[in-house]
Amino acid sequence: MSDIFDRLSFNESGLVAAIAQQHDTGEVLMLAWMNSESIEETLATGQVCYFSRSRGKLWRKGETSGQVQRLVELRIDCDGDALLLLVDQTGVACHTGRRSCFYTAIQNGALLEIAAPEIAPDELYPITK
Amino acid sequence: MSDIFDRLSFNESGLVAAIAQQHDTGEVLMLAWMNSESIEETLATGQVCYFSRSRGKLWRKGETSGQVQRLVELRIDCDGDALLLLVDQTGVACHTGRRSCFYTAIQNGALLEIAAPEIAPDELYPITK
Repeated sequence: MSDIFDRLSFNESGLVAAIAQQHDTGEVLMLAWMNSESIEETLATGQVCYFSRSRGKLWRKGETSGQVQRLVELRIDCDGDALLLLVDQTGVACHTGRRSCFYTAIQNGALLEIAAPEIAPDELYPITK
Repeated sequence: MSDIFDRLSFNESGLVAAIAQQHDTGEVLMLAWMNSESIEETLATGQVCYFSRSRGKLWRKGETSGQVQRLVELRIDCDGDALLLLVDQTGVACHTGRRSCFYTAIQNGALLEIAAPEIAPDELYPITK
């Protein structure tokens, strides 16, 4: 395990960028961030855990929504500051209910929405009373 | 063009993360960074230009090595701080001569090199005298 961390180059906040890609279709699902603790947890459990910069804590992907990511393989880039997570995504990756967060394309200089939600966001995150 | 930049959320260094993916095979090639100028140039020329954090200036991918990336489509993620560049990569994306920068996998807790160089690095970057 130690040689993995020797190869990583964390930024000044102790984070590396992590790309999640559906392992069999190649679809890029999202970009998030990981710290050493979230990487260790992900490798130990096989369930992807990020570090939420906005909440300042571990983000167990799908813990609230059920839209978990099972880790298939973790890869490190040549300079150790980015990870590629090959995952099996349950349901949708994006909080908007879309499969991928990259659903806005630029075509002919204009923004175009290229994917619709598959699940309504309020089904993903029911308001608890 | 202005509505594109309205949707982007640059970090404190004026950058957004950019994932390059081969448009037809789905292979994730690399992760780099872009500032507004490099995005404008990429959209204007159709050749991918990043911002090099180490050199502190525009990085016209392939300018030295010839391993250029032609832009097929640029996509923006849901919160505007990451880009997905669908590209057509000439040759290899990685400075090590490998197709992708993500050539190191973690398998059974150990690092494993899963791709060999296709071009020797000194062929990519000949020493100019």
